[in-house]
Amino acid sequence: MDVLKVAAKSKPLSIAGALAGVIRENGSAEMQAIGAGAVNQAIKAIAIARGIVAPSGVELVCIPAFTEVQIDGEERTAIKLIVEPRRR
Amino acid sequence: MDVLKVAAKSKPLSIAGALAGVIRENGSAEMQAIGAGAVNQAIKAIAIARGIVAPSGVELVCIPAFTEVQIDGEERTAIKLIVEPRRR
Repeated sequence: MDVLKVAAKSKPLSIAGALAGVIRENGSAEMQAIGAGAVNQAIKAIAIARGIVAPSGVELVCIPAFTEVQIDGEERTAIKLIVEPRRR
Repeated sequence: MDVLKVAAKSKPLSIAGALAGVIRENGSAEMQAIGAGAVNQAIKAIAIARGIVAPSGVELVCIPAFTEVQIDGEERTAIKLIVEPRRR
């Protein structure tokens, strides 16, 4: 599964559209954000994506976790966000 | 239900403990964060709280939404995060 990498400059509406597309195709999506600005944009995108998929009867929830990533050979702690439909 | 207000200076571990307590008592919790720094601490707290309650067989998910709040008579957009056990 492709990981949607979110940056502080990412536009929440664009990420939300991508998120809805990935979830429609794969059933769930994984986002990755490093730093407060990126995490904030990712969360806004999830709030918007909930509205995009809601008319199809899908209610999205998100599962946050820590993850270690390598950036320029340096270990950084990123936030991983799994976004998927709530099980009924 | 009391709303856990998270600030950029809030300590994720402390919020996580409060979060786990509120969920144990009420079944779910609501957090509110204004600004990227606060949203970031709130998401870290949820990731930590997932680990706190996991041994009890509870898997927490989070539902982000926008909400308007009044701060010093001014309208601000906050992020509301509902945290609750995943339905099985």
